[in-house]
Amino acid sequence: MNQELALHTDKYQINMMYAHWVNGTHKRRAVFEAYFRKLPFGNGFAVFAGLERIVRYISTLRFSEEDIRYLSEQEENYDPAFLEELLRFRFQGTIHSMQEGAVIFPEEPLVRVEGSIMEAQLVETAILNFMNYQTLIATKAARIKQVAAGDTLLEFGTRRAQEADAAVWGARAAYVAGFDATSNMLAGRLFGIPTKGTHAHSWVQSFSSEQEAFDAYARVLPDGVTLLVDTFDTLRSGVPHAIATAKKLEAQGKRMKGIRLDSGDLAYLSIQARKMLDEAGLPYVGIVASNDLDENTIMNLKSQGARIDTWGVGTQLITASDQPSLGGVYKLVEIEGSDGRMVPTIKISSNPEKVSTPGKKEVYRIIGEQGKALADYLAFPEEEAPRSGRKLKIFNPLHPYLRKKVERYEAMPMLQPIFTNGLQVYELPTLEAIRAYHRSQLDLFWPEYLRKLNPEVYRVSLSETVWNRKQELIAEHLHTEEE
Amino acid sequence: MNQELALHTDKYQINMMYAHWVNGTHKRRAVFEAYFRKLPFGNGFAVFAGLERIVRYISTLRFSEEDIRYLSEQEENYDPAFLEELLRFRFQGTIHSMQEGAVIFPEEPLVRVEGSIMEAQLVETAILNFMNYQTLIATKAARIKQVAAGDTLLEFGTRRAQEADAAVWGARAAYVAGFDATSNMLAGRLFGIPTKGTHAHSWVQSFSSEQEAFDAYARVLPDGVTLLVDTFDTLRSGVPHAIATAKKLEAQGKRMKGIRLDSGDLAYLSIQARKMLDEAGLPYVGIVASNDLDENTIMNLKSQGARIDTWGVGTQLITASDQPSLGGVYKLVEIEGSDGRMVPTIKISSNPEKVSTPGKKEVYRIIGEQGKALADYLAFPEEEAPRSGRKLKIFNPLHPYLRKKVERYEAMPMLQPIFTNGLQVYELPTLEAIRAYHRSQLDLFWPEYLRKLNPEVYRVSLSETVWNRKQELIAEHLHTEEE
Repeated sequence: MNQELALHTDKYQINMMYAHWVNGTHKRRAVFEAYFRKLPFGNGFAVFAGLERIVRYISTLRFSEEDIRYLSEQEENYDPAFLEELLRFRFQGTIHSMQEGAVIFPEEPLVRVEGSIMEAQLVETAILNFMNYQTLIATKAARIKQVAAGDTLLEFGTRRAQEADAAVWGARAAYVAGFDATSNMLAGRLFGIPTKGTHAHSWVQSFSSEQEAFDAYARVLPDGVTLLVDTFDTLRSGVPHAIATAKKLEAQGKRMKGIRLDSGDLAYLSIQARKMLDEAGLPYVGIVASNDLDENTIMNLKSQGARIDTWGVGTQLITASDQPSLGGVYKLVEIEGSDGRMVPTIKISSNPEKVSTPGKKEVYRIIGEQGKALADYLAFPEEEAPRSGRKLKIFNPLHPYLRKKVERYEAMPMLQPIFTNGLQVYELPTLEAIRAYHRSQLDLFWPEYLRKLNPEVYRVSLSETVWNRKQELIAEHLHTEEE
Repeated sequence: MNQELALHTDKYQINMMYAHWVNGTHKRRAVFEAYFRKLPFGNGFAVFAGLERIVRYISTLRFSEEDIRYLSEQEENYDPAFLEELLRFRFQGTIHSMQEGAVIFPEEPLVRVEGSIMEAQLVETAILNFMNYQTLIATKAARIKQVAAGDTLLEFGTRRAQEADAAVWGARAAYVAGFDATSNMLAGRLFGIPTKGTHAHSWVQSFSSEQEAFDAYARVLPDGVTLLVDTFDTLRSGVPHAIATAKKLEAQGKRMKGIRLDSGDLAYLSIQARKMLDEAGLPYVGIVASNDLDENTIMNLKSQGARIDTWGVGTQLITASDQPSLGGVYKLVEIEGSDGRMVPTIKISSNPEKVSTPGKKEVYRIIGEQGKALADYLAFPEEEAPRSGRKLKIFNPLHPYLRKKVERYEAMPMLQPIFTNGLQVYELPTLEAIRAYHRSQLDLFWPEYLRKLNPEVYRVSLSETVWNRKQELIAEHLHTEEE
């Protein structure tokens, strides 16, 4: 999916770039941080995704002649010299980011962009668009993975996805968080994700009998064939016919993989079908279920004793249907002043939780002596980095009286350099490495932070220096206002 | 967004194509119809969109060498001769479709695909993906348009959209249903949609004072400048500073366009800001509001007397957040039998509403003598077409006792030929023509079918021939089962 995406941005970004350019402030250094304020789905954590897409976008970011022509027609205000400059535009800034698969939390920088205000503004929209969607889907997939435990999980959502990119990048995000395969062949080709599929009702309907349809399918695709058994009547027609086909395969020394249930009471039908398959001497034939599944329906089906080995999850996952957006934002935290010094900035809000935290920040995950994460810790790069032996005060920035001290710990830096002055310095890991990293990230947390319902709140703490700087800027702002 | 999309399909489609190919049935003629069963958002109608995307997809549908290599590596089963055939694949079928902007209803064919079973299967996934998403967003936008009445509506959702395609095609769908502009510049360039934007908080933060920031922005972009007034304090800082800037523009004979409110109590703030602007002699300065708006918040704000002229709608629209998917399906309605005759097919379900209606169908909108739609009417192409003077029985297929007869009417055929044997026979209309068609479609309906809350149910009726065919097939199926 290589697309020209320079104009995949909001008009106000181009307008601000232009206004800075005319104003002579477009080369000022600025630091922006992307983060979200609230976890989706009531989950205790999120799973970072979108970096590969961001890297491809940044490294190929060019305005085409056609883009420039469009801009010149759009807005007579734009000076031709500005448009010339856009035509030569290359991203020259520095980006740090969480790695894909990382377990992440609200209010911590996930992607940090440093560069000229002009370039940092341009990339805001696309970075948020990619990060918000892919992180949302990886997080939803992680919830489903948690309840499905050792079962196989298939991503089946393409037809209900919000257009093509969502289908393809959503399939990838689900795989990052532990899904086993997707039905989307393009996602398979682009990312090397395993692909899986059975057949549709139309296959059965295009034959004069269900038995004939099953036999024909098994003849052509004997390896791993899974038959859809609910076209007419699951237990009276579909399962008996599938059993007959399995027996014919056995006679050729082959084994049917499974049957798929796609409607009706999946708990009851799977228990009955399991019994029928077992009684027919086919204990190895698995049961795949699909039909508007999510983490809640899967958990309920399991608690009812459903005999399902493989879950095909579509709409609910690919659209994150119970909360279809992650409210990631991108805030200016530092800007070069007219004297060339970097000045921390704050965004005030009447809602205290929306006041931004000024200054460029590092993120450390503090791992205690038992190998489990105690808190995340944000500090300025110029502060002495936390290291074992150096006492840390960990406290909740919204409720500073909740605090504790730690002394023996490991401090794991979470933000990795991705681009340095426009040069890509990060080698994109393989998807398998990303999946392994994700699992290792989950291992850092006690189960109470990970549970699906009412998880314990994990703390993201500010260093005292960061905390004090924030209070100073709030006070300064109030003071200015009272003048 | 021209992409290679041949593999943007589910694996089972390729497997079914292959199985038909091996089985020698891949050239059998088949008819599929795409439709949905339930209206989204409790709305009384939906707005069809996605056709332009479908046309581009179908007319450029090719497997690349890379696609074929991928398939051959994926599945050792595939015969090389089959892959050769894919490499030569061109869509040769016939497609009829609703036009974009059409007012549509459940259970009526929206896109009808006729062709070899192989090609008709391949295109299912992408057609549903495009139709489902774009129709959903156009429908959501129509709801918002209805409450916003004459106000200006801006689509601002890119950063929260489900990846790039959703942002761009969603912006287009919103424009089809009456939005006035989008912030997404790529959508502007690709489709000629007007683009609009203001500035971000970061613009203000990058200056040492709000006044300086406003003045600089207005200096550079004096035409239609809209200033964001909530970076520090809307009424104490933002609005007074914007007024000062407007006065400076006036001194140069220029007029500020508006101010934008992006947080806080939008009803209260807009009323106060309106008063301040009016008292400053700036009645022409408009008020733009944004911040998680949808049709319900807009209606509430209006009922509270909010003084807002322009609504920037983001997340809630672009993700259709209260129902982020339309459950469109694609069902086989006819298949060529071994004797070469087309045979109607049915999909039985234990849920009566899910039983499909067999046979290839036309859709007529029956317009009464007052120029308003009475019902939609599905009939087989071989039936005599409805025309004024020919009595029609209109009845609800789920509740056949609800019926009435009409005699004087106009029968408007809704499905248009798009491709005939692979040749595109439909000229894509301009977006302005689509918008005009959409408005003319809305004009066909009494307001009670269009209202946002508890709309009257519009009837989609079956011809007696279609109804009888369906009952025959159900009976036939039950009979087979009892044997």
